Amino acid sequence: MTTTARPAWLTEVRFDEKGLIPAISQDAITGQILMVAWMNAEALAETAQTGRAVFWSRSRNRLWRKGEESGHVQRLVELRLDCDGDVLLLKVEQIGEIACHTGRASCFYRRFEQNAESLSPKWVSVDPVLKDPELIYK
Amino acid sequence: MTTTARPAWLTEVRFDEKGLIPAISQDAITGQILMVAWMNAEALAETAQTGRAVFWSRSRNRLWRKGEESGHVQRLVELRLDCDGDVLLLKVEQIGEIACHTGRASCFYRRFEQNAESLSPKWVSVDPVLKDPELIYK
Repeated sequence: MTTTARPAWLTEVRFDEKGLIPAISQDAITGQILMVAWMNAEALAETAQTGRAVFWSRSRNRLWRKGEESGHVQRLVELRLDCDGDVLLLKVEQIGEIACHTGRASCFYRRFEQNAESLSPKWVSVDPVLKDPELIYK
Repeated sequence: MTTTARPAWLTEVRFDEKGLIPAISQDAITGQILMVAWMNAEALAETAQTGRAVFWSRSRNRLWRKGEESGHVQRLVELRLDCDGDVLLLKVEQIGEIACHTGRASCFYRRFEQNAESLSPKWVSVDPVLKDPELIYK
């Protein structure tokens, strides 16, 4: 944000000590959880204003307009804030039906599995790759 | 965790610099997002072992067995990990159908609303209180 005062609605959002808040993207129709990313105040304000999900990339240290490279834009359908004001929920329309950089619909494709025969529980990839990542980020 | 070595599945989970990871609770049947809390390795291990959601309370600085006071236990149906390994998703059965300490089904009861007539967007509580919190925490 610039040095101008934040609007009232934005002051109710509790960013952490790094100025960030986690944001869950959920498919507005199916309810599937697509991904979790982070927003700073600027990303949130732009998301609210434009109706397109914008995050703060912690690895690249810059605004990340979801889909800017992949085309897999998230259109905002509804925005919610939790009771403590420290987590955001975006109900979205996922363009291209792929949210994950691995080419899957959702980032949460690994399921915890344990059974009586195996003494070692493990994370198992259970969701299909819908598109080769090399074709997404070309 | 004690000083014993962590099992392999647990080493794939990326806890942050405070040893914590955010965990989303989602109703396994309806897909409604109920809440987001934090886990440390001990909370996660106990959750996986017992099938009951256990978090790390950052305010009380101790393990928080969800429902220990309210009775609103979360039974684990499925546990997932995201592509980066730094967010957990718990699909749960919410006992009592109330996850939020305000007596609502979900903590995400505030919706962002803006309209052309009002210049000031705001967060509006749109979900009903199902039970008086004073009756929950008595």
